[in-house]
Amino acid sequence: MFEFELLHADGAARRGEVRTPHGVVQTPSFMPVGTRGAVKAVTQRDLVDLDAEILLGNTYHLYLKPGDDLIARAGGLHAFIGWERPILTDSGGYQVFSLASMRHITERGAEFRSHLDGSLHMLTPEKATDIQAQLGSDIAMVLDECVASTDGIDGVRDAMRRSARWAARCRERLQRLRQGPVVGVTVTNPGQAQFGIVQGGIHPGLRTESVQATLEIGFEGYAIGGLSVGEPPAVMYDVVGHTAPQLPADQPRYLMGTGMPDDLIECVARGVDLFDCVLPTRNARNGQLITSRGLVVIKNARYAEDPLPPDPGCGCYTCRHCSRAYLRHLYIAGEMTAATLNSIHNLYFYLDTMRRIREAIMFGSFERLRQEFHQTFSRRPLQ
Amino acid sequence: MFEFELLHADGAARRGEVRTPHGVVQTPSFMPVGTRGAVKAVTQRDLVDLDAEILLGNTYHLYLKPGDDLIARAGGLHAFIGWERPILTDSGGYQVFSLASMRHITERGAEFRSHLDGSLHMLTPEKATDIQAQLGSDIAMVLDECVASTDGIDGVRDAMRRSARWAARCRERLQRLRQGPVVGVTVTNPGQAQFGIVQGGIHPGLRTESVQATLEIGFEGYAIGGLSVGEPPAVMYDVVGHTAPQLPADQPRYLMGTGMPDDLIECVARGVDLFDCVLPTRNARNGQLITSRGLVVIKNARYAEDPLPPDPGCGCYTCRHCSRAYLRHLYIAGEMTAATLNSIHNLYFYLDTMRRIREAIMFGSFERLRQEFHQTFSRRPLQ
Repeated sequence: MFEFELLHADGAARRGEVRTPHGVVQTPSFMPVGTRGAVKAVTQRDLVDLDAEILLGNTYHLYLKPGDDLIARAGGLHAFIGWERPILTDSGGYQVFSLASMRHITERGAEFRSHLDGSLHMLTPEKATDIQAQLGSDIAMVLDECVASTDGIDGVRDAMRRSARWAARCRERLQRLRQGPVVGVTVTNPGQAQFGIVQGGIHPGLRTESVQATLEIGFEGYAIGGLSVGEPPAVMYDVVGHTAPQLPADQPRYLMGTGMPDDLIECVARGVDLFDCVLPTRNARNGQLITSRGLVVIKNARYAEDPLPPDPGCGCYTCRHCSRAYLRHLYIAGEMTAATLNSIHNLYFYLDTMRRIREAIMFGSFERLRQEFHQTFSRRPLQ
Repeated sequence: MFEFELLHADGAARRGEVRTPHGVVQTPSFMPVGTRGAVKAVTQRDLVDLDAEILLGNTYHLYLKPGDDLIARAGGLHAFIGWERPILTDSGGYQVFSLASMRHITERGAEFRSHLDGSLHMLTPEKATDIQAQLGSDIAMVLDECVASTDGIDGVRDAMRRSARWAARCRERLQRLRQGPVVGVTVTNPGQAQFGIVQGGIHPGLRTESVQATLEIGFEGYAIGGLSVGEPPAVMYDVVGHTAPQLPADQPRYLMGTGMPDDLIECVARGVDLFDCVLPTRNARNGQLITSRGLVVIKNARYAEDPLPPDPGCGCYTCRHCSRAYLRHLYIAGEMTAATLNSIHNLYFYLDTMRRIREAIMFGSFERLRQEFHQTFSRRPLQ
């Protein structure tokens, strides 16, 4: 039930379709992050209006609350949250490393204490696979060991090799679940695909070794993990440029946790198909509107009487209805709808950028789009 | 530009149309409260989807932040918040009494300190009229002196008589503004109407005296103030039943700050046309969903796996898309969208109740609707 079709290529940039049990995703695609079964500050209706084709759900959060057993009894995550389109779930590993109040890694898995109530949990590759089978996402991720960007090459190598061993166990577990019922696990989406994750930090040799080990196991798609953890963009681009071409052309490639809009363009240029990032929604809640010409930091006094929309060239609901002055007022007054309106704009900007990228690839004009984008876009506040 | 047409009566219940410079309001009507130029947790688009025909804005809040001068320069409140339909503004008096950190009442007006920054302000009848002229609401309210429900009859009488003197000054000021430019005041809506407010607490004699004094001044419509301040519903119904029939049949009647859905039905039965209340949105943020059969207190463990929508008979977005189990999860997780989804439901319930009331009056079946409503509706948690 899971398929990837490569429709067109323009240089290394790829235009494709990911087909899942819950519908098709046009790639390159950006996935809004619905951490706890909800993208913060926007409703599912907003996401449909924005034409989001796929959501990301965080296994760590959903496992702790409301629990994958409860979600499985509700028929899976799609039914529970009322989202009929595709969902990708991560393995929970990243949050164990970034959120849990204690973690202890062994070959068996990651033992950790919940950041919510201190309760003790063990996340093994098998458990991460089972939880995601119960959630019933369309794409599940293998459990990997995340390392700090400051770790030396030996630590990165050890974690990469352990991740490969864990990936094999995740795959084995999923194959077992596909063969027939396993006591205690309700498979809510029999057509679920599983992606492997390439690790290896910023070291080309380790990345190549990880690609080979991951391809040897064999998955429906491949992710590039361990980036967007503090390294400079140029370094990330190099790692992606080194890694992506080594992945099978006929399978989807997913760059995890990236990034700013210019990162997306640069990584599409290097052959990536899928992205996710909390940046558009998190920055929105912090009052940063991402526009085609730079950031609108909405609390700034210069916007107090500005009648322009955040981005005069943007077609989102917020830009069609709200002035910067009104959005500043809402943000300063602490109105919840500030987060909603800003999130709608930022998500629209991301999703619209992906639409334009897809169109450019189809017309063979991706390189021109890329150049034009860099000429106007800025990560700095609007001048 | 302001008109009221009485279309139909069914007993004391009235079906009418309020015509304003920003369009028509079908009455009886409920006005969602957009305190600071935004109904909390819902966007203007949600309000249009919900078919809200008129919003209430709070003069006290808007005067303090972002300020009526700024809003006037933006072209008025409609332009500033991107709401093209009618708006009613209160006078600011109620918040001076309930929110300000200090207040000192003299014949001249109410001196108070901002609850935001402690700054000192003077709200006179003239100032309240000027602020609302700058906001450019379609219906402005006179400044009245609010008294505590525990005040004795002498205090209530004094405040009522002072309110009548203040009302005359508000009217005089508006007439002056209508005659031509006044330095320092930008009239952003020349068709603005002004409503007088009947005070007098729970004392029939004082209410009658207040009606006479207010009618003598003469306004485009009349409000009943000083209720929903802690008195039992039956007492409120009696005061409304005593007061409303004394008001002109060919002008709109507005009951301020009320109430629960059964209050609305009972006061329509006594001849009220317009209502406002923070209850549906405030209760929504506190996790209370108001349904045709009672409250759904969404945090309750009994809803943890409940696949039903909040109200199986309801047609709102939330009930069409979300289970109680999902809404409970969002509420407990502290997701902002819990407030949004709950507010959409509660506002829909209020607005839909008003729609059903209007239809029943047209068909002469209001009394039957009223009986049926009381048979099923409850203010207590759903059994």
